[in-house]
Amino acid sequence: MSDATEPNWHCRSLAIVGVGLIGGSIASAVRARGLADRIIGIGRNEARLKQAVDSGLIHEASTDLTFAAEAELIIVCTPVDRIADDVLDVLRHDSAAIVTDAGSVKASICRQVANAEGCERFIGSHPLAGSEKGGFEHADSALFENRVCVLTPNESTPESTNDRVSAFWQALGMTVRHMSPEKHDRLLALASHLPHLASAAIAGQLTEEAAAYASTGFRDTTRVASGDPGLWTAILMENRLETAKATHDLIATLNEFQAALESSNAATIHALLSSAQQSRQQFLNCFLRRGSGAP
Amino acid sequence: MSDATEPNWHCRSLAIVGVGLIGGSIASAVRARGLADRIIGIGRNEARLKQAVDSGLIHEASTDLTFAAEAELIIVCTPVDRIADDVLDVLRHDSAAIVTDAGSVKASICRQVANAEGCERFIGSHPLAGSEKGGFEHADSALFENRVCVLTPNESTPESTNDRVSAFWQALGMTVRHMSPEKHDRLLALASHLPHLASAAIAGQLTEEAAAYASTGFRDTTRVASGDPGLWTAILMENRLETAKATHDLIATLNEFQAALESSNAATIHALLSSAQQSRQQFLNCFLRRGSGAP
Repeated sequence: MSDATEPNWHCRSLAIVGVGLIGGSIASAVRARGLADRIIGIGRNEARLKQAVDSGLIHEASTDLTFAAEAELIIVCTPVDRIADDVLDVLRHDSAAIVTDAGSVKASICRQVANAEGCERFIGSHPLAGSEKGGFEHADSALFENRVCVLTPNESTPESTNDRVSAFWQALGMTVRHMSPEKHDRLLALASHLPHLASAAIAGQLTEEAAAYASTGFRDTTRVASGDPGLWTAILMENRLETAKATHDLIATLNEFQAALESSNAATIHALLSSAQQSRQQFLNCFLRRGSGAP
Repeated sequence: MSDATEPNWHCRSLAIVGVGLIGGSIASAVRARGLADRIIGIGRNEARLKQAVDSGLIHEASTDLTFAAEAELIIVCTPVDRIADDVLDVLRHDSAAIVTDAGSVKASICRQVANAEGCERFIGSHPLAGSEKGGFEHADSALFENRVCVLTPNESTPESTNDRVSAFWQALGMTVRHMSPEKHDRLLALASHLPHLASAAIAGQLTEEAAAYASTGFRDTTRVASGDPGLWTAILMENRLETAKATHDLIATLNEFQAALESSNAATIHALLSSAQQSRQQFLNCFLRRGSGAP
């Protein structure tokens, strides 16, 4: 585990597979920090790729994955349910390129890649940054600054692969943490996937009539519910067992709330709210300590 | 129902019972807009009241409720479980003062005041504005601008009482809506009380270990969970039946999510997320149309 920044990271050529918000923001941050001579964008939509080249975000683009093989580092930023296939495709090409990804779920991807040929060139990454807005038009070169990136090596990941990728994320201003893919998914279910699912469930209760009386509390509590349903279906499905378990626990807490309301048990309501306030303060202390942004 | 602004509202003397965030913000807005010659603050803590006078927020202060009787308009801004008693106390004094409140729950307050002597001088109000921060130190003269204020008259509320109080909130920059206390509580359960309770339940799931991996999504989804547990216990208890019903419906949706995850039913997850996205867009359209702030 290393937190040291790595100002001198550099490569001749970097390939980004999937030039959306995350891929685009990586490209933008790499350019802003001068980390690569050339950035190659790989995608499926030729017109969109051309726009990304024309906007100056990437140097060249192709719909052909073989094009990525010439890069020194390949980052797969496709939707989470496509990452494993794309990584396996990339690894099939004869190349010395180190390969990583930016997926929000890790266990199933790492499991699928684990015994493939070339798997020693791959390490799973999850840069903890995002937005409810999609598309490279919203690319933000500062998206990764002061955020955490989780890397999920396994026993056979060479130190060189780990070091090169760790140093890359550090060069984008991130703090790198290492853990198993399974642990990552368990923690992220609580920190991100459950909050997303629950935020959507809360938003879904609002009637047209009640919408006129919702204010800043509702706005913030449900902000992430504006996220892309397709992307999030994929994330929740990839981490479905951990998220289901976390949902089960949330329902148990909500049942306590409901029972306390129905039986006029103010003490239980107060205890639940106080404990929640403490949990949030604990989060806020972490969040502010790493300088991730405003509370 | 009237949306016209009322720039000419003015009174000689205004009393605010309970000088916290809401009471303090009303005082601040009234001063900024020159709506009253004098503002009298009534509270229980002498030292705090003195600070509020010294800071220039209110002109004079007292711990004695009789002091409020000389005002033309009295606004009761105490915690929601004390409002009915405070309003009844205020109405007991021989005075021509119009009386309203700023409570987030209306049915039980309005029921308790309904047949009291002097009840024709009272109308329930709920200015939809707030903050997770408490205390008059966080008073904000712009807190009410472009927000909605719900008034809950009953059949025997005189038009003059209604008009005077409506015009006051409009003079603070608010849009006034009228409805029954029961309807208010049903709509606010969905728009505010359930989101608060659920946000706390989500925050309460976070473990110490997972806190390090929570980011902006968690921050916003759980922002209101940092609110004061005492104040919110009172709000949830005052609206306990509507909030319990809304919690029951939320649990039903979460059960659908959990079952879909456990059975790998991506189509249901996608449908739930899409419907939530639409609900939030509907809210956002209302919110932005009334110019309440950033999305």
